[in-house]
Amino acid sequence: MTTPGIGLIGLGTMGSNLALNIADNGHDIAVYNRTPERTRAFVDGAGELADKLTPCETLTEFVAAIAPPRNIILMVPAGEVVDQHIEILRPMLGDGDLIIDAGNANFRDTNRRAAEAREKGELFLGIGVSGGSEGARYGPSIMGGGPKPAWDRVAPVLKAIAAKYDRVPCATWMGEGGAGHFVKMVHNGIEYADMQMIAEVYGIMRDGLGYEPARIADIFAAWNKGPLHSYLIEISAEVSRAIDPQTDRPVLDIILDRAGQKGTGRWTVIEAQHLGTPVSAIEAAVAARNISARTKEREAGEALFGPAPQALDAETVTPQCLENALLAGKVACYAQGFTMIEAASEEFGWSLPLPEIAKVWRAGCIIRSTMLNDMAEALTASGRVNLMFAPFFADIMKRGQGDLRSLVSKASLGGNPVPALSSGLAYFDMMRTGRSTANMIQAQRDFFGAHSFERVDAEGAHHGPWVGS
Amino acid sequence: MTTPGIGLIGLGTMGSNLALNIADNGHDIAVYNRTPERTRAFVDGAGELADKLTPCETLTEFVAAIAPPRNIILMVPAGEVVDQHIEILRPMLGDGDLIIDAGNANFRDTNRRAAEAREKGELFLGIGVSGGSEGARYGPSIMGGGPKPAWDRVAPVLKAIAAKYDRVPCATWMGEGGAGHFVKMVHNGIEYADMQMIAEVYGIMRDGLGYEPARIADIFAAWNKGPLHSYLIEISAEVSRAIDPQTDRPVLDIILDRAGQKGTGRWTVIEAQHLGTPVSAIEAAVAARNISARTKEREAGEALFGPAPQALDAETVTPQCLENALLAGKVACYAQGFTMIEAASEEFGWSLPLPEIAKVWRAGCIIRSTMLNDMAEALTASGRVNLMFAPFFADIMKRGQGDLRSLVSKASLGGNPVPALSSGLAYFDMMRTGRSTANMIQAQRDFFGAHSFERVDAEGAHHGPWVGS
Repeated sequence: MTTPGIGLIGLGTMGSNLALNIADNGHDIAVYNRTPERTRAFVDGAGELADKLTPCETLTEFVAAIAPPRNIILMVPAGEVVDQHIEILRPMLGDGDLIIDAGNANFRDTNRRAAEAREKGELFLGIGVSGGSEGARYGPSIMGGGPKPAWDRVAPVLKAIAAKYDRVPCATWMGEGGAGHFVKMVHNGIEYADMQMIAEVYGIMRDGLGYEPARIADIFAAWNKGPLHSYLIEISAEVSRAIDPQTDRPVLDIILDRAGQKGTGRWTVIEAQHLGTPVSAIEAAVAARNISARTKEREAGEALFGPAPQALDAETVTPQCLENALLAGKVACYAQGFTMIEAASEEFGWSLPLPEIAKVWRAGCIIRSTMLNDMAEALTASGRVNLMFAPFFADIMKRGQGDLRSLVSKASLGGNPVPALSSGLAYFDMMRTGRSTANMIQAQRDFFGAHSFERVDAEGAHHGPWVGS
Repeated sequence: MTTPGIGLIGLGTMGSNLALNIADNGHDIAVYNRTPERTRAFVDGAGELADKLTPCETLTEFVAAIAPPRNIILMVPAGEVVDQHIEILRPMLGDGDLIIDAGNANFRDTNRRAAEAREKGELFLGIGVSGGSEGARYGPSIMGGGPKPAWDRVAPVLKAIAAKYDRVPCATWMGEGGAGHFVKMVHNGIEYADMQMIAEVYGIMRDGLGYEPARIADIFAAWNKGPLHSYLIEISAEVSRAIDPQTDRPVLDIILDRAGQKGTGRWTVIEAQHLGTPVSAIEAAVAARNISARTKEREAGEALFGPAPQALDAETVTPQCLENALLAGKVACYAQGFTMIEAASEEFGWSLPLPEIAKVWRAGCIIRSTMLNDMAEALTASGRVNLMFAPFFADIMKRGQGDLRSLVSKASLGGNPVPALSSGLAYFDMMRTGRSTANMIQAQRDFFGAHSFERVDAEGAHHGPWVGS
């Protein structure tokens, strides 16, 4: 065993698995956890990888165990704990040593830490790691931010441990500062909307069509062989098919309908407000989770308003119709996500590489899908353009919009809520309207607040005949 | 003329009108503006109210002109300018002097300023003033925040200048710190959604039914005599009827469809994320404004996807149907707003008086309406409950939901975007669903991230059979 050039702090599920992944790829690595018991247990359970691991019981020991220039990965809870570790490590490190925050940081914190590091002449990277614990162990998607030379130094290791799509590693430098964590945040926002749209279609099948989970599982599994091929559709089939060992009932039926969240969906919505960019499908998904948590109120509402969602006609609401609707809704949602990234790229002075982002999401992360490969190609070909208007996806929208319309229309009539799908449809219809209804809003604003409006036939700011009258 | 006990800084449109309103109600008032020319012009133009005004050219003169204990109203641009004025005034003021920020502050800034004032033993109020320039002059809606005794001291003046509903002044103390500015912010968020829903119905009439603005004006005017009676419906009729003097065409038709915003809608969405409370209709409205600004993209989309929104059947999409749909959508939107206020009340330790908030919005502000009087009664009677479930509004929802469904359904089929109305409908349907589809989301989250789920038949956190397998 050689002296490792890499160390990792924080041996929770993600940190442990990332360390094993690095070791598995042939790199020696020093590991440290706040509680030495955990460090010992980790190494004891590492099997044949144990001899790649250097367990350290103190941070002094840990830093000493790594050969300079050191590469230190932090996988600790986001927030103050990261700052505390940076503070503690700072006096222990030397020129050229690099700290890599691989946790779930808010990109604004990463921006701040990057600026501090730059001022002090230190090296700091913030990398978004997606794919859950399995991803961390066998190949996550990695979105890097910070100084390019620092990224280049660790890129060989990160690319080695990352997921591969057609042998291309899903580990990419996104830009300076918090660019990596920003892209990871939008990934999660899209994930919320993707999951919500799937849940809505599941609801149509369960409540509108009366399908049992096993039948729903078959339909998801069939979709996973077509253009919807993706991890989320795959696991939707799996969870729909699973049986609860305690009750022998489908697991789905015994899971309480109260969705939790860790906050990245919320962050995405907040940042979209700052950027003035529409992410209505993501907003609808976050709102749906918040609504789901209001169990008592919902039960009261059900008692008050009576009948359950109305039966839909299985002759017209076919799996093919649902598949096309979901495809079109998904494209609208991803278009919003990429548009947001484009807006951030301008706002923060990054040059976020849209096609590379689609590529880095093709494998390893939760939203991985075949469609993301098509998106990478479309974004490469079309440059900075709304994804819905890129030829390949314009075709999907053209083919799918009828079914999406039909589904939203029937679900709205029948009382099956489809908030994300209908937001996606409204977004599509608004984005293909040269003449929207915002003229009414501008008229009202000028009437009550003299905010002025633009004219269709002249430059400048104008007022209606009502102002001053 | 006596020595005034009140002074006002900042003679823009809002400040000037507020000062005239105060003078008009028999109070002497000292006035100051950064540029003395403006102060002089203001007093010169004040007519017979001029002898109530004490113009001051410096802040020293201004402070000296007010009899202690002083009440100083700031009507300056929100943000740093407010802090600068507080810093400058602080050493010039004495015990018992009161600074009142009447500008459009973010409530978090007001919270901060209130805490600073409390620490230093100073008096500070943050009041939200709604109603535009006309409101400021002849009767705004005033939402106060800060120490109750300070509010009580100036309440007689504020109640005198405020709008009246059935002789009840629309000026109410909401709670400590930023409570007043918070309530004002949600007012504006609701305003966004209310305006957007009106614009959507306008779009149905314009694009789906081919109605001319004059006909649309008649319909709005007729609605204004029924349960939709409100300032926004009233002015929608006015702007629809107005003719552009330059072209002799309806003004609405020459206004560019690109909506601006000042930020309070965006703030509402951001704070709703922090509170975890669903405001999907407001989110849809803010997103619609952001989309409207993307003129070039929309035109490209129109070119690509061809036909304009499809004609709707005027036999079934009647004004009565649209009125009912708008009523139901509006109730859903206000329910979200009041739910958000309830959540903030808990989060920030306020005891925000929901019925009083409905009352203070009944006159003077942009969303003033007869319905707000009904809301005040419903909230008084029902206590803390979703407005949609209060008997009076449950009846509106029961009567209106069919038409709202029908409208969203037809508009979705026809390509007329109705993002806020469909968000309102989805919210209603989700809030009356005892069994939502969030069980699918929890299943997915547990599958990929071992986040655990709750069971319908047992307490605690559980995992599916897939975890660890």
